Amino acid sequence: MSVLVLGTIATDTVKTPFGRKVDILGGSVVHFAMSCRLFSPVNIVAAVGEDFPQKYINFLLRKNINLTSLSRCDGRSFHWEGEYNGDMNAAITLKTELGVLLTFKPRIMPEQRVIKYVFLANTDPELQLSLLRQLRSPQLVALDTMNFWIDNKRAALLKMLKKVDIFVVNDQEARTLSGEVNLVRAVKKLRKLGPRMILIKKGEHGCLFYSDKFIFSLPAYPVDKVIDPTGAGDTFAGAFMGYLAKTKRIDEKNLKLAIAFGTVAASYNIEDFGVAKSCTLSLKDLQFRLNKFKQIISF
Amino acid sequence: MSVLVLGTIATDTVKTPFGRKVDILGGSVVHFAMSCRLFSPVNIVAAVGEDFPQKYINFLLRKNINLTSLSRCDGRSFHWEGEYNGDMNAAITLKTELGVLLTFKPRIMPEQRVIKYVFLANTDPELQLSLLRQLRSPQLVALDTMNFWIDNKRAALLKMLKKVDIFVVNDQEARTLSGEVNLVRAVKKLRKLGPRMILIKKGEHGCLFYSDKFIFSLPAYPVDKVIDPTGAGDTFAGAFMGYLAKTKRIDEKNLKLAIAFGTVAASYNIEDFGVAKSCTLSLKDLQFRLNKFKQIISF
Repeated sequence: MSVLVLGTIATDTVKTPFGRKVDILGGSVVHFAMSCRLFSPVNIVAAVGEDFPQKYINFLLRKNINLTSLSRCDGRSFHWEGEYNGDMNAAITLKTELGVLLTFKPRIMPEQRVIKYVFLANTDPELQLSLLRQLRSPQLVALDTMNFWIDNKRAALLKMLKKVDIFVVNDQEARTLSGEVNLVRAVKKLRKLGPRMILIKKGEHGCLFYSDKFIFSLPAYPVDKVIDPTGAGDTFAGAFMGYLAKTKRIDEKNLKLAIAFGTVAASYNIEDFGVAKSCTLSLKDLQFRLNKFKQIISF
Repeated sequence: MSVLVLGTIATDTVKTPFGRKVDILGGSVVHFAMSCRLFSPVNIVAAVGEDFPQKYINFLLRKNINLTSLSRCDGRSFHWEGEYNGDMNAAITLKTELGVLLTFKPRIMPEQRVIKYVFLANTDPELQLSLLRQLRSPQLVALDTMNFWIDNKRAALLKMLKKVDIFVVNDQEARTLSGEVNLVRAVKKLRKLGPRMILIKKGEHGCLFYSDKFIFSLPAYPVDKVIDPTGAGDTFAGAFMGYLAKTKRIDEKNLKLAIAFGTVAASYNIEDFGVAKSCTLSLKDLQFRLNKFKQIISF
């Protein structure tokens, strides 16, 4: 089954202890697509400006990403510039140029309105809502967000949370939104905001999943070569959604496997800048690390 | 098989968002003993002062803890006063009165010199060495430490690390000692300092184990009622050592199970002040949560 993902495409300039890369391909939907495509066809809903390098468009097309709902707008593309120092868990944002994102209105093709698996990556909750309204009867809608929207568009975000199935969010944002430091209490509070499933991303510390039926937790896959963590969360979400869309069953067994695939997909992504590593991956690579991961955490 | 543990006995005054407890029984060997005793007989090597409440001695004796090498010294008992605010992972130390610890020299009974399983809880590396020298042919020696010794007695600590089998240490201290932020790199560097096994305690984020033969990682057992995290690490170590001493096999399967028992033991400990919860535990309680834990992390 196809997956639809709304979010950003960007050129990123990233500095880490391992080097500096200028204007590489980035953005949530790109990282998401690189892992999701290994399981299911990916449809991107995003905007680029007139300046966006054609080579990146060609690259995505070669990866069989559906770009029919990629808007080419007047103005400049979204650009992010960030730096990681010793603590590879936290990026320091040096520059954010919203460009076309300031006026972007997502619009999808008629044939995309029936897509059942939808990921609303971190963006303005009003855009997320506007996309959701264009869909006929989605089966599984997941939503990501960040502190900026929690602080500045809280009402719109809370409204959105009542409409989605899975809330995917990082630990700090889960704490901010719930007002709970303890993550187990936090997920229970977030559950009350609407989504029947909560998936907390904890970076190097793994993840925590909560639903009324079961709780699930994994450490991160141990990686000693963290080159650039940008996009790890979206890579995680891409494999997670892609696996569910492929298998078409939202039960405990499948959700756990989807989270495990997300974990190993993210572990590859951080081993090189941007999508340099994740764009080379095959399903076999994920399966290989999944099997190793099982040994690493089984007792 | 018996376990010998060197460390501190204290009266603790602890304040958390859930209340304040004055002069409760604490110290590394006490927390260690409460979980270790569920698997193996525990022998404590520590010191108390003249002021130490007899009721705490009686309590430990009732729990079948061997106190023949507990020194009663002139002076005051070790006292720690600390506070946890929102972040239950980090204690703020308000007061440390070393008292008898300033002059304490560990000395064990002749019959204890043949004990094979030894835990050297966080204390002066010179005391750790002096105890180790009294042992005939220990089979498994584990050592814990903290930043104070890394900063102030680095040479003695490095010497000790060459003599022990397992280095048990928390994540921040592993980073400080190894000079590596990435924990997978850190454990590999620590391995080169001597110990053939490295066990990193990450508090609410679980643990990471490393040896030349295998790597192992677990999240923490999810607990939503963290009342007082004091002693969680020593409770973890107690179940870990106790299980290994009971089963007498230091192989991959047993090490993994020992770490899992340590994880669930710690999860109980933090649910009440001091040892109020862990002193009530039975092996059945640990087994119960171990089975639940297996479901929580299996995919």
